[in-house]
Amino acid sequence: MTLPDAPQSIRTEPVLDGTAWMAADLAVPEGVVSELKPPHLAEIAAFLSELRAAPLPVQAERALWQALAHRSMPELSALAHAMAHRTETHVGTAVLRGLPVDALSPDEIRSLYRALGAVMGNAVSQNTAGEFIAEVRDYGMGGLNSSEVRGYQTNAALRFHSDDGDLALLLCVRPAANGGTSLIASAMTIYNELLIRAPHLLGLYYNGFVYENRDEEDPPAYRNAIFGYYHGQLTCRYFLRDYVDSAWTKTSVPVSDLERYALDLFEALAARPGAATEYALRAGDLQLVNNNVIVHSRRSFTASGNTGQRLLLRQWVNLDGGRDFPTSLCRHRYGMQTHTDART
Amino acid sequence: MTLPDAPQSIRTEPVLDGTAWMAADLAVPEGVVSELKPPHLAEIAAFLSELRAAPLPVQAERALWQALAHRSMPELSALAHAMAHRTETHVGTAVLRGLPVDALSPDEIRSLYRALGAVMGNAVSQNTAGEFIAEVRDYGMGGLNSSEVRGYQTNAALRFHSDDGDLALLLCVRPAANGGTSLIASAMTIYNELLIRAPHLLGLYYNGFVYENRDEEDPPAYRNAIFGYYHGQLTCRYFLRDYVDSAWTKTSVPVSDLERYALDLFEALAARPGAATEYALRAGDLQLVNNNVIVHSRRSFTASGNTGQRLLLRQWVNLDGGRDFPTSLCRHRYGMQTHTDART
Repeated sequence: MTLPDAPQSIRTEPVLDGTAWMAADLAVPEGVVSELKPPHLAEIAAFLSELRAAPLPVQAERALWQALAHRSMPELSALAHAMAHRTETHVGTAVLRGLPVDALSPDEIRSLYRALGAVMGNAVSQNTAGEFIAEVRDYGMGGLNSSEVRGYQTNAALRFHSDDGDLALLLCVRPAANGGTSLIASAMTIYNELLIRAPHLLGLYYNGFVYENRDEEDPPAYRNAIFGYYHGQLTCRYFLRDYVDSAWTKTSVPVSDLERYALDLFEALAARPGAATEYALRAGDLQLVNNNVIVHSRRSFTASGNTGQRLLLRQWVNLDGGRDFPTSLCRHRYGMQTHTDART
Repeated sequence: MTLPDAPQSIRTEPVLDGTAWMAADLAVPEGVVSELKPPHLAEIAAFLSELRAAPLPVQAERALWQALAHRSMPELSALAHAMAHRTETHVGTAVLRGLPVDALSPDEIRSLYRALGAVMGNAVSQNTAGEFIAEVRDYGMGGLNSSEVRGYQTNAALRFHSDDGDLALLLCVRPAANGGTSLIASAMTIYNELLIRAPHLLGLYYNGFVYENRDEEDPPAYRNAIFGYYHGQLTCRYFLRDYVDSAWTKTSVPVSDLERYALDLFEALAARPGAATEYALRAGDLQLVNNNVIVHSRRSFTASGNTGQRLLLRQWVNLDGGRDFPTSLCRHRYGMQTHTDART
């Protein structure tokens, strides 16, 4: 009998490119900031003017939004596209600052946001309602200890985690009165530490953990890898730990001590002094979060006083010509099934 | 935030004692053979004589059987006890040869077998019927692809596996006409190979795999580690792979490619040329299999012609003063719940 071939390889060398960093390595807390300049604002005015003349629903296909953006906002589109792709090799996060959200109507905000997302990549559905733009706010449903609630629906602090698409695009429409700051850490730096501190446990992270589907999809639970190494690229997905802790309700198999340790260690490495950068998003900030290489978290927040509650808009987009890896590393990379799909 | 403490340590050094071997290292295929001599046979006659005078049901408690054995068979008891404990550090398997099964009635065989088991350790229940002595034979129910069937109930070949107690004691009453030979490999040697060939996957083996409970117990599936390292002792349990492959029917979570590889690799290392010893049990052979350090398998068999079908009797016993390790490494080490227990 010959020995079997390994289905994938385990990376044994540290990651040394710009995606592996400590907070002190960053020039600014946001990693990279591009501020909009007057010509960009003029392009946005042209975009909105063209849109008023020929309305386009946000549900319209990406190619239409992409064409409109390229035509009416050539400089801003080039900037957004470059920022998005640069996150793959440099820092893994960036902020496009100064979108004129206070001067725009809610519909105009969503249109501009849809157009910029379409320039950066292909947006996918984030829930079984098929939403491509989800509102990240307090839905008043409580925290993640309720099995009905997802991370974007609560004002509670969130643990370090990844979202599903290559990029999460978070547009700050209204910041919180208190709290809600972003924390961002390099998953590549975490991996480099694991190589030293827990090399024999790497297989656990590559094999992944079982997550509860929060009643949104069948099957009720699924395995997702935390790290994968394909075509010379190390990729991470670390979904909300809360869904691992509750998965036993669907599988009858509780989290083991060793699994709990592996998850605790990952999060402790993200949260240790100097690892994460923390800052508050401002109204008009579009935050790019590259889920392939970084993890993010958020502190709890309270309402914004007279101006209404904290509101972020979220898109998940996949980069054109992006990394090639199997869905065992990101089950919902190409979006969640809508309930309509699930029933047909 | 400080880093969490690991719940257990991973052994990074090879095992170098007598439990790590290749087939060519063994003096005889059985590892260790002790043949009964006339004084032992005389003791057995005395034992049976005493038993006829004062019958003792096999269900009677261990202390009674132990006392009877020590009193009526002092030499054979000392031999059996020494053989059992020596498996912990030397080879991990042995055969006590020449029990006079052909001269004894079925009840006498069970009584002698019960007494020898009681000398070696504490027997535990092997199924939800609460059987302490199970018959290993073809129950005519088919193979392990049926979710109702357990390994001891089929004539199919069995993969390499462990049983639950520290020792499996297999008494050959009737060998098969064809096939049914035993294969035994050192789990410690397999570990030494894994240290070299797949060091980053060790965490997977320590974390273990999810096994189906074959409808015998709640919960319907459970995790069991394959290796554990406690108090300086490396211990293995590798339960029948078939129960891992079918566990998704209870959990909704299929075996991953990396898990399948880890299981395939373990079994390939057991089955590779030179690793396992193979031999046929003879009528009257009592085979000791130390599940802490070795794995065993069996080839398929056919009926024994006129003399009836192949029949082994099986006990699972735990050694007095045996290893200390948690049940996460052997869920049923102390026996399976009987259905009566489960309902109360």
